[in-house]
Amino acid sequence: MDTEALTQRVLKNIFVELEASGRHVHITKEQAQALFGHSLTPKRPLSQPGQYLANERVTVIGPKGRFENVAVLGPERKEGQVEISLTDGKTLGITPPVHLSGNTENSPGATLSGPMGQVTLPKGVICAKRHIHMTPEDAARFGVKDKQTVKLQTFTQRPLIFEDTVVRVSPDFATYVHLDYDEANACGYQPGDLGRILI
Amino acid sequence: MDTEALTQRVLKNIFVELEASGRHVHITKEQAQALFGHSLTPKRPLSQPGQYLANERVTVIGPKGRFENVAVLGPERKEGQVEISLTDGKTLGITPPVHLSGNTENSPGATLSGPMGQVTLPKGVICAKRHIHMTPEDAARFGVKDKQTVKLQTFTQRPLIFEDTVVRVSPDFATYVHLDYDEANACGYQPGDLGRILI
Repeated sequence: MDTEALTQRVLKNIFVELEASGRHVHITKEQAQALFGHSLTPKRPLSQPGQYLANERVTVIGPKGRFENVAVLGPERKEGQVEISLTDGKTLGITPPVHLSGNTENSPGATLSGPMGQVTLPKGVICAKRHIHMTPEDAARFGVKDKQTVKLQTFTQRPLIFEDTVVRVSPDFATYVHLDYDEANACGYQPGDLGRILI
Repeated sequence: MDTEALTQRVLKNIFVELEASGRHVHITKEQAQALFGHSLTPKRPLSQPGQYLANERVTVIGPKGRFENVAVLGPERKEGQVEISLTDGKTLGITPPVHLSGNTENSPGATLSGPMGQVTLPKGVICAKRHIHMTPEDAARFGVKDKQTVKLQTFTQRPLIFEDTVVRVSPDFATYVHLDYDEANACGYQPGDLGRILI
């Protein structure tokens, strides 16, 4: 093993890489048909295995404003969902609850607009609760379990410690911290920045 | 002393109140003349003694976008300054350095537009570094000094610990933590929320 590879391996034993998620949308197969006239098509893979950024984009419309050209992530899901930051919520005139992705309980709705039509979601607008995707191997190494909450110290321009950060463990995951853009900007995140789990 | 007053007094010995600062502008007397044809006029006082929100508002224009109806804070200063969040910077197409208010070194400029004219600032667009305004009495009680950096734990919906938070001590201050809106939303701030200094 050369020095660079060794350095990377040591770093990965101590730190977790941070990623910032911009506003994005998940839709169902039926909603893809209504919005685009066809299923989603992959543009490029995301860090989580099997997940991709779609070529297709939508406009998200709220009572006070709209965002055009919003990313749609594939593959399609069983329920439509819009993930925005609290700052985005002010622009749209929507106050999303802070929930883990997939939990749309008691969330407000929004309208999606695509080249072939519009879809109104009665609910599904959330602010994604910060979380760490982790492989079972990394979870064992860091001594954490699925659904455990940890503190996460960021080594960033504006350093801080995120409390109440949920660990999600699955063999389908790659190990990354997911922050929204309020959190990313609050800590001065730059791509490649690292964090450390404090238990 | 009644129970409520006693509770407030005990709380103030342990916690510091958080405030979120939205995007805003400071201008000189000459710039006020150019933008509005007169000096700033106070609309309401701010938490810091002598500071006020002006009736006058400006449009801030960057290479990629603009914000209309931006707050101007008075009284006038010796140098124009625009304080925005990093999220705002993306909208304007400007990357501000994270500086304490008043430090405009190496900062980019922007154009301000008012009802009577425009002013182009060659520099002065910053992202305000988080800080705690503190009276000398509170500084003595918390055991901190002017310019010291502390950790600040927030008791908010999305709790976190801001590292590298600068304490500013002056008899002209009232004791409040100042966050920008990225930081406020990252911690789920609501008006009245409290923080605790960790040294």
